[in-house]
Amino acid sequence: MTEQTHTKAKDLDLQEEASLTSGSDSWHLQGLPDKGYEGYMITDGPYGLRKATGSDVYGSVPATCFPPTAGLASSWNPDLTYQVGQAMGEECVQEKVAVILGPGINIKRSPLGGRNFEFYSEDPVLAGHEAAGLVEGVQSKGVGTSLKHFAANNQETDRLRVSSDVDARTLREIYLPAFEYVVKNAKPWTIMCAYNKINGVFSSENRWLLTDVLRGEWGYQGMVMSDWGAVHNRVNALQAGLNLEMPPSRTDDQVVQAVQAGNLDKEQLDRMAQGILDLIDKARPAMSQQGYRYDVQEHNDMARRAAQESIVLLRNEDRILPLDPKQKVAVIGEFARTPRYQGGGSSHITPTEVSSALDGFKEAGVNVDFAPGFTLDEKEQDPALTQQALDVARGADTVVLFLGLPEDAESEGFDRTSMDLPDKQVALLKAVSEVNDRVVAVLSNGAVVTVADWMDKTKGLLETWLLGQEGGRAVVDVLTGAANPSGHLPETIPVRLEDNPTITSFPGEEGHSRYGEGVYVGYRYYDTFQRPVAFPFGFGLSYADFDLDQVAVTKTGANSARVEVTVTNTSQVDGAQTVQVYVAPCASRVNRPSHELKAFTKVFLKAGQSSRVSMDLTERDFAYWSTAMDAWHVEAGTYRIQVGTSSRDLVAEENLQVDGDGRFIPLNAESTMAEWRENSIGGPILRDRIDQDGIPLPDDPNTAQLFDTMPLASVITLSGGDGNGIVADMVDRYHQALKQQGLDS
Amino acid sequence: MTEQTHTKAKDLDLQEEASLTSGSDSWHLQGLPDKGYEGYMITDGPYGLRKATGSDVYGSVPATCFPPTAGLASSWNPDLTYQVGQAMGEECVQEKVAVILGPGINIKRSPLGGRNFEFYSEDPVLAGHEAAGLVEGVQSKGVGTSLKHFAANNQETDRLRVSSDVDARTLREIYLPAFEYVVKNAKPWTIMCAYNKINGVFSSENRWLLTDVLRGEWGYQGMVMSDWGAVHNRVNALQAGLNLEMPPSRTDDQVVQAVQAGNLDKEQLDRMAQGILDLIDKARPAMSQQGYRYDVQEHNDMARRAAQESIVLLRNEDRILPLDPKQKVAVIGEFARTPRYQGGGSSHITPTEVSSALDGFKEAGVNVDFAPGFTLDEKEQDPALTQQALDVARGADTVVLFLGLPEDAESEGFDRTSMDLPDKQVALLKAVSEVNDRVVAVLSNGAVVTVADWMDKTKGLLETWLLGQEGGRAVVDVLTGAANPSGHLPETIPVRLEDNPTITSFPGEEGHSRYGEGVYVGYRYYDTFQRPVAFPFGFGLSYADFDLDQVAVTKTGANSARVEVTVTNTSQVDGAQTVQVYVAPCASRVNRPSHELKAFTKVFLKAGQSSRVSMDLTERDFAYWSTAMDAWHVEAGTYRIQVGTSSRDLVAEENLQVDGDGRFIPLNAESTMAEWRENSIGGPILRDRIDQDGIPLPDDPNTAQLFDTMPLASVITLSGGDGNGIVADMVDRYHQALKQQGLDS
Repeated sequence: MTEQTHTKAKDLDLQEEASLTSGSDSWHLQGLPDKGYEGYMITDGPYGLRKATGSDVYGSVPATCFPPTAGLASSWNPDLTYQVGQAMGEECVQEKVAVILGPGINIKRSPLGGRNFEFYSEDPVLAGHEAAGLVEGVQSKGVGTSLKHFAANNQETDRLRVSSDVDARTLREIYLPAFEYVVKNAKPWTIMCAYNKINGVFSSENRWLLTDVLRGEWGYQGMVMSDWGAVHNRVNALQAGLNLEMPPSRTDDQVVQAVQAGNLDKEQLDRMAQGILDLIDKARPAMSQQGYRYDVQEHNDMARRAAQESIVLLRNEDRILPLDPKQKVAVIGEFARTPRYQGGGSSHITPTEVSSALDGFKEAGVNVDFAPGFTLDEKEQDPALTQQALDVARGADTVVLFLGLPEDAESEGFDRTSMDLPDKQVALLKAVSEVNDRVVAVLSNGAVVTVADWMDKTKGLLETWLLGQEGGRAVVDVLTGAANPSGHLPETIPVRLEDNPTITSFPGEEGHSRYGEGVYVGYRYYDTFQRPVAFPFGFGLSYADFDLDQVAVTKTGANSARVEVTVTNTSQVDGAQTVQVYVAPCASRVNRPSHELKAFTKVFLKAGQSSRVSMDLTERDFAYWSTAMDAWHVEAGTYRIQVGTSSRDLVAEENLQVDGDGRFIPLNAESTMAEWRENSIGGPILRDRIDQDGIPLPDDPNTAQLFDTMPLASVITLSGGDGNGIVADMVDRYHQALKQQGLDS
Repeated sequence: MTEQTHTKAKDLDLQEEASLTSGSDSWHLQGLPDKGYEGYMITDGPYGLRKATGSDVYGSVPATCFPPTAGLASSWNPDLTYQVGQAMGEECVQEKVAVILGPGINIKRSPLGGRNFEFYSEDPVLAGHEAAGLVEGVQSKGVGTSLKHFAANNQETDRLRVSSDVDARTLREIYLPAFEYVVKNAKPWTIMCAYNKINGVFSSENRWLLTDVLRGEWGYQGMVMSDWGAVHNRVNALQAGLNLEMPPSRTDDQVVQAVQAGNLDKEQLDRMAQGILDLIDKARPAMSQQGYRYDVQEHNDMARRAAQESIVLLRNEDRILPLDPKQKVAVIGEFARTPRYQGGGSSHITPTEVSSALDGFKEAGVNVDFAPGFTLDEKEQDPALTQQALDVARGADTVVLFLGLPEDAESEGFDRTSMDLPDKQVALLKAVSEVNDRVVAVLSNGAVVTVADWMDKTKGLLETWLLGQEGGRAVVDVLTGAANPSGHLPETIPVRLEDNPTITSFPGEEGHSRYGEGVYVGYRYYDTFQRPVAFPFGFGLSYADFDLDQVAVTKTGANSARVEVTVTNTSQVDGAQTVQVYVAPCASRVNRPSHELKAFTKVFLKAGQSSRVSMDLTERDFAYWSTAMDAWHVEAGTYRIQVGTSSRDLVAEENLQVDGDGRFIPLNAESTMAEWRENSIGGPILRDRIDQDGIPLPDDPNTAQLFDTMPLASVITLSGGDGNGIVADMVDRYHQALKQQGLDS
């Protein structure tokens, strides 16, 4: 079929070309069947395949349900996400699915975000690295991913039309970098645009986003599809850089007419349609495999390993965990029998099997007494359930209490309004803790819940998020010590919801969501402004003990460095530690977070083993986005390189002199005296004019400092000169000098 | 000279007309001397006259220094600000000043704002009412005020060019209402535009601000002048609605040419120039008075009474105040000898006299031992000063410790970077408290300072802000009980600076200041999100005790009510209580603060006396600004009317059913199904189309609720219809119906 792969979209009949740019139905590309371009299937993800069956919108073929993203993210392990991706890719090949829709890498801006369980983190570096692993894993099998939702889709409230009102620096530093990292490093075949607007422009029609930034700045070569129903004007969307409208709106005629009327560039349509043909070409080898079957059991085992690594041990007083095999254990909580293992909405999967914690205990040969404790509905607590739970608790050495958010509490489609567990669960915990002071709480929840109110009633606390179909066995593996927990928090657990910086603006109103907190999302806020938290970003315990020492920071260039650290497992059990590198900025002309995660490595170490870990910091890791320069900017100065195991557990901090990138803020009529003086091109012009026009340079340091911060024109005018006129001439000279140096735009 | 008053700007020669719209020098109008329009003087305020002498920019004729605004604001007494205004007006008449530049009524957005000492409050109702009193007082003497700085001028950093990036609702609810109230109720002769931009447009060139809102919506009849040097383009400024450029840039030719070239409407120039002539007409009677002299002693006494009412008693453990005349008092702190009584910058006055607290004690016949304790410079603490202070403290029954911010710590021109008192002062307090546990701290500071760290070392705490030239005597009046403190806080004292909601965005960077906290300024943030504070907004103690009871809330209209409360002085001393009325919103479609101050009354009561206080709430007091409606909107529902003596000391709360104003969000292509259904005009159209087009109305309540929040077009499209087409037709019908009812714009 090699001849078909040479079909060029631009040579097609216009109607045919237009038809390529929307689906044939909700789950298939249109393709050009006559020319050998099959309309392949694309289906939902992102933590397992959701291939719709028949007409039922929620029915899907069985697939392995891997840990949902909120869980998997806690692994801090791109190698693991790669392996999960490989497995998902194999399921796509078997099911003849050319593209699986995911991963979702939007930032968890607020704890209330309804789709947080599908997203990775409050931090873009962690999200980007983990998602890149998943994308590479899937695509290694010859099928595509769809990185979503591009961009600034951080809430469900009014999601089909809300405008995310967010300034350029915040977009560049928080909401775009995970996309940028994955695009540059993992090259996803497709990207899905978001429903929402960004600063008033629908993502689907946002040429700045889809073309200038994505393809221009980042060099993206793949195609962009719409979220389902996100296209409001097909012609505008094509012009902006959207290749594929899903599902189809049957408006190909509008596209043809727009080209004929000159309202849509033919070359742009060519590019957009060609993207579809290129995608089909890429998928063809895998889609042409006959009779491929993935190993269901092996994928189930993969799901179990992934779930083990997704569990975060938050609290382990008196080393209550792992459970002493000699002790009698009570298991309380309906979640132990009816696991909450995935989220709701487009990601909802029909699993190949499901294990509960009770299954896991049974298989592990641990006899436990069980009481459901509460129901998962919203009914008031049944006193009989409480009584039964207390009876069971009294008779045990240790209680493992499974708490969490019922399925109805979080889903695509709505945001939460509270961060709290259901009252009846917390009441049960308190009652149980009064009859048995050895309580281990195990949490199942897609998004973060309040723990500060009640965690002092526990000796052990596991945050298991959502663990997928093998969560039940995995959590027992960790409870018994068969697996050593190694997860770290991908998001801060605040003390109270009200401590979160988005509390004043989330989820907005009347069509607008103001990103008022700017770059101070998650730990960037809590750490910078010393707000107490329940557990910091990056936190996680192990049954093993680790030492981090011999930290060395070596300069590798003007604005780059290598960080090395020796990690030693000083305990008697094998385990993993996650080394995190944060960069604290130099004194800056802008407000910067106190520190930001820039690199991390998960190290698996046998008992007693040591390893030297090395991580590189590049120029970008020191930069902020300068709105004035419309570019990344590295200031010269002393940065502090922090090494630790959470954003608040730092074991070493080293100074690093960074040279800076030598960029200057462009000069204009409003530029301050200091901006003129410090500019390599403007400085000489200023010195000329000082001599020529007697621009005042006060000796008095206070006045000099004041003048420095004033627009030069104002300084001159206040001194009796023609400020506006003089500065206008200077700006002309500045632009001439730029032009001579080939620097003017 | 009656004939001159009939001169019309539009009849003037163009050059002459243009010349009217800037000053003749820094402090004078140009006027038309030939035609009897004298170029009157205008000078700085706002808490006393600053009439420049000769060429020295900082020299000024002696004038009474009344308490700076930060102090006077604590009086919660518009009658008092009226009296102060009258006195300032008399000084203007004597000095032949036609307009005094003030009051400054910008909102104290951040505790760090460099000019907070010149502003009233974090709350626009308090600021508006107090400023209106001052304006009316000044203008009762036949001279004008200049309400400043219009608008959203809430920081000094980069103030000459920064853009205050603030959404429409926040502007309308927080940053504009004080201006609106004063304009509508006190009719200031002039308004001064701010230096800064609002959402990218300089205030001086902001037609929306200066014309559409100020003159159009609010009906302002006076003139607008620039802040000194705020004009960047004279023609744009005139076109936007700026009458007067100050100081003059000598660019009248540009104005003439712009009219001739058709770039500036002649009618607009006529209006702007006429404003100057009208102003001169208004000022002429007062300016023509010969030989008027104000009573310097009487004004000094006025300054003393105003200062007494400006003092806020924050803490009075064991009733340590008023001082027991039998006890031996130590006075410590340089501020007792060298009072900090006014701010720096354009408001800086040459006082007619100045009293210190030591003067006050002497005159009151109280013998005190004094130690300066520390110096007001930034030098490290001198151990000898500490030793001397401790010696004095040891020998006394009670210590009165004067602490505060040195003059250099706050001024026009820069923002603070810390909220803390100088370290050496806090260290001294702690040392003193260890040798004497009866410490009364007296604070002098223009903007709020941290007290939570050290106030437990005191038994008494007076916040005296800046008190003007009679502050020394006034504070002794209060300490001795000769005056009973009645001030209440016009701004919250947070526990830590980092608790303030602007901490993530103040003062911005690279030319932009993002008002990210929206309407959650001051107590609107702290109270809504239950953040602990050191002292809440509106708080203030008295030597008297008061009961508030018999609260009655009576509906006076569909959306209005009267609040009545009986206040009783249950003590043996005369005093004043400030009754505050807060409105807590009904369940709302937008995020609203938990409550907002809407009315207040200060009641002076003799010992044992009672008074029935009545305050009216109007429709506006229940409204929020709907960005979608571009209008104030009152939702129907149950509002709670709270009566108290601070935002957190509420003595009664009554429910009030408010009918609502019946307004609807305008419908458009993106409107949700619920917005269509609830709209009085759109509802019938929707019902028609449901029958006609089979628009889906699910029985399942969950789906129905989901559909309600989705754009109607999306609902129809997902159900297989032509959503965009159908809704476009419906929007057409909606606009036709509006037009028929004369409602379409």
